[in-house]
Amino acid sequence: MTCPLCHPEGENILWQDALCRIIRVADDDNAGYCRVIWTGHVAEMTDLEAAEREHLMRRVYAVEGALRECFSPAKINLASLGNMVPHLHWHVIARFEDDARFPDPVWAPPKRSGAPQPDVDDDTLCRALAQWLGRMDD
Amino acid sequence: MTCPLCHPEGENILWQDALCRIIRVADDDNAGYCRVIWTGHVAEMTDLEAAEREHLMRRVYAVEGALRECFSPAKINLASLGNMVPHLHWHVIARFEDDARFPDPVWAPPKRSGAPQPDVDDDTLCRALAQWLGRMDD
Repeated sequence: MTCPLCHPEGENILWQDALCRIIRVADDDNAGYCRVIWTGHVAEMTDLEAAEREHLMRRVYAVEGALRECFSPAKINLASLGNMVPHLHWHVIARFEDDARFPDPVWAPPKRSGAPQPDVDDDTLCRALAQWLGRMDD
Repeated sequence: MTCPLCHPEGENILWQDALCRIIRVADDDNAGYCRVIWTGHVAEMTDLEAAEREHLMRRVYAVEGALRECFSPAKINLASLGNMVPHLHWHVIARFEDDARFPDPVWAPPKRSGAPQPDVDDDTLCRALAQWLGRMDD
């Protein structure tokens, strides 16, 4: 099977380098949803070298920081699952107490119609992300 | 409300230092399930200092390595959610293609009666974990 993360289509890329990319996920229920995707086709964090893990996680933390800054969520959810697509990627999701599934994970069935969430455009999120990426590499 | 991770009861602790602890979770559906719990009552990774994040994640990676070694799972799932208990903790879970929920996350409703999983006792897991913890601090 062709790996959809090795051969992506239509991704909304906010930032990338040779090792990984940060995309924004279009999700009607979760306005503040990004993924950090490792470029190489590996499955697990322990398939990476220590420096590679650190590189990847600093990007995850930067996304967390930017989502907190832009969305003021109740909670951030971080997850690397990959059961469907075993190509290393991190979900970084801003959660709200009145979102469609809170306090369940975003993969659970919806509990309610979610309330409106902050309307943050890509440019605003990118600017916050750039600042957080800079801080993480200090 | 009293935080159940600040005032734990009946945890099966495999390893701990002043900053965090690693516990094994008794879960009938998932034999290889650990949590890495930060000692301080903070909610998010970006509430920690960079060195603290690195300390915590090296323990998460060590658990991942030990679970891979002991269980040979199809996939490892890593998640920091905290929607129910906003005290920083990581779920590290060995997943199998014939477990009760695969490929859904372990928080989804079961899809089937899960097949038997490797019978790994705490001592065996602890020994593997000790080796992986050593490697992570090299």
